Amino acid sequence: MFVYADNAATTKMSKTAINAMLPYFDEEFGNPSSLYTLGQRAKEGLEDARERVAKCLGCSPKEITFTSGGSEADNQALVSAARIGERKGKKHIISSAFEHHAILHTLEKLRKEGFDIELLPVGPTGTITAEQVKKAIRPDTCLVTIMYANNEIGSIMPIKEIGAVCKEAGVLFHTDAVQAAGHLHIDVKDQNIDMLSLSGHKFHGPKGTGVLYARQGIMLTNIIEGGAQERGKRAGTENMAGIRGLAAALEEACAHIDENAAKVSKLRDKLIEGISKIPHSALNGDPVNRLPGNVNFCFEGIEGESMLLLLDLKGICASSGSACTSGSLDPSHVLLAIGRPHEVAHGSLRLSLCEWNTEEEIDYILQELPQIVEYLRNMSPVWKDLIRGKRQFIL
Amino acid sequence: MFVYADNAATTKMSKTAINAMLPYFDEEFGNPSSLYTLGQRAKEGLEDARERVAKCLGCSPKEITFTSGGSEADNQALVSAARIGERKGKKHIISSAFEHHAILHTLEKLRKEGFDIELLPVGPTGTITAEQVKKAIRPDTCLVTIMYANNEIGSIMPIKEIGAVCKEAGVLFHTDAVQAAGHLHIDVKDQNIDMLSLSGHKFHGPKGTGVLYARQGIMLTNIIEGGAQERGKRAGTENMAGIRGLAAALEEACAHIDENAAKVSKLRDKLIEGISKIPHSALNGDPVNRLPGNVNFCFEGIEGESMLLLLDLKGICASSGSACTSGSLDPSHVLLAIGRPHEVAHGSLRLSLCEWNTEEEIDYILQELPQIVEYLRNMSPVWKDLIRGKRQFIL
Repeated sequence: MFVYADNAATTKMSKTAINAMLPYFDEEFGNPSSLYTLGQRAKEGLEDARERVAKCLGCSPKEITFTSGGSEADNQALVSAARIGERKGKKHIISSAFEHHAILHTLEKLRKEGFDIELLPVGPTGTITAEQVKKAIRPDTCLVTIMYANNEIGSIMPIKEIGAVCKEAGVLFHTDAVQAAGHLHIDVKDQNIDMLSLSGHKFHGPKGTGVLYARQGIMLTNIIEGGAQERGKRAGTENMAGIRGLAAALEEACAHIDENAAKVSKLRDKLIEGISKIPHSALNGDPVNRLPGNVNFCFEGIEGESMLLLLDLKGICASSGSACTSGSLDPSHVLLAIGRPHEVAHGSLRLSLCEWNTEEEIDYILQELPQIVEYLRNMSPVWKDLIRGKRQFIL
Repeated sequence: MFVYADNAATTKMSKTAINAMLPYFDEEFGNPSSLYTLGQRAKEGLEDARERVAKCLGCSPKEITFTSGGSEADNQALVSAARIGERKGKKHIISSAFEHHAILHTLEKLRKEGFDIELLPVGPTGTITAEQVKKAIRPDTCLVTIMYANNEIGSIMPIKEIGAVCKEAGVLFHTDAVQAAGHLHIDVKDQNIDMLSLSGHKFHGPKGTGVLYARQGIMLTNIIEGGAQERGKRAGTENMAGIRGLAAALEEACAHIDENAAKVSKLRDKLIEGISKIPHSALNGDPVNRLPGNVNFCFEGIEGESMLLLLDLKGICASSGSACTSGSLDPSHVLLAIGRPHEVAHGSLRLSLCEWNTEEEIDYILQELPQIVEYLRNMSPVWKDLIRGKRQFIL
């Protein structure tokens, strides 16, 4: 059996999204900046995609900028807010310790420029409260950037409440919604969101596509300078096929968001229940308030990487943290942020589901995973120490 | 008849390039950072694409960074060279007045940061000489960036000679080869090129894809911060389908480069010869040393935009300048740079051909264009002044 359970890393594209792209390769291949009919038809396709994306987010089309992905959107949002803040003499930025590296590394760059970066501590279930944000806001705060839902442990932040706190204080609020878009209801106006980033390939759209929503009146700073595309805010010939694919995928995901969430969270809960029976394991993240497809566990006494390789041999695709950091030997900064000790953070497993997963697949994972954990523990010197009482169990 | 003659703006994708992309949407959809087999197969596809691109440019795969397009590659090249220069106290950058806006606007940003930007004047046929560059190099010069071939008028620069001058002086040399790649032979080592940018959609590859070549030892500065993709120098999940499409298109273009150039330049020369018969018209750019597909004329007494609209009615896709600036009412900075006066620069027409154009299409353009020029001149008050001797002819 082949089970793809790493939908937080990337997703298989939907037929709808692929079909939306195809004409733009060799029929409607015009450059939307060109004056002739072929170019103007591309321009119409571009603006139609923008309208559809705007509708999914509850904003106006002119508030949408297409980017090459979530990372670019995150970078541009943060740099833009920093430049706005700078002009007003405000250089304090609030974020959290378990953001994606597209946020954390951009903040690090801004710190080197003299910005004062404050990373809020994350509670044990992986949440940041509006109260925390409220307390942290200072007169010189120019930006609060808190992710919508965590990419590793799936916990969902109280975005509307955090947005309200920021709005009241007159501070820009950005959210990295890469894991949320297409999976959770988003309404940027209702949720008091000033800027939001999303990525096409997390909801069955194409890789290499993203969106930056920025409320009207927020002056964006270019990350990529050049031609006047995207109202002069993002240079480079528009990736028409990608943009069409992203819009189609987002629209499709949003049209089925409740039924998908219901289906996927049922599979998730079954998986969580089953894995919880493995001794000395623990669920990471909020047990209730979590992404429909996210399952993340720590297992004592074993290494995440070995688990992944054995799961792969059984045809199960999973990850130990985010794909973006998988080359690294360091334990997940997210698990450390929620207070898991190093030795336990190394033994983590993320299974992320989508609406195309089935009950049979969950049964299959639940049949294979406990055996793999047992097998690895039997070989593990750490586990031997634990059962002999030479080390203390943490979980 | 439908004639696409705007291949410098963008190209129709080749079947080869489309077919190279398709599997990566829904079969090989893995994230190349993932450890399991599906992810590792994507990783192999990524590195295979890198090797193929490197082979086309005569460099090593580790010198290739995939970007979201030519503009991003240009931005990253310039910012990287600026940071390297800054660290050595060198802040003088040499470029030319007729570069693409991805270069000029990035240089403007660097100028605001305190860099001394020197734009070399362009000769009447649209070239920069190695001698000019040599004279301009100072002890504090950190970068020379000169385009490989101009996007509007098609003139080709003496890249190898400019590269040699830079090499001798120990100054980094970058070239924006967006119009050259896939159309002219490139060998970065032989041509003394330290950094080079190219864009996939200019040679029948996908939009939203590009490459930055940077010689080993040149430390790149991130434009997009985040995950550790592309050796930590370009964050964001790799656009696998786009990268595979770009590599396939470049490989295909390079495999047929001589026969395509021979075919296309024959069509170009026929078109130039035919258009030259229109009175008070003049070819822009170097008559000999120009891109195989580039035809660019100025016509006295008419507006470029009206010409484009009437050509479009006849099914002919053409442009008056670059697509990236077509929203603007200003005359082309390229034509001004080669010394065309404002009134003439407004009446320009670019026809850019590819190997899929035919002799019949050239005949069709040569049948329609003179009538359009005559029609517009008959309506033009400027033209009336010219023939009545109230104004002097320039061309």
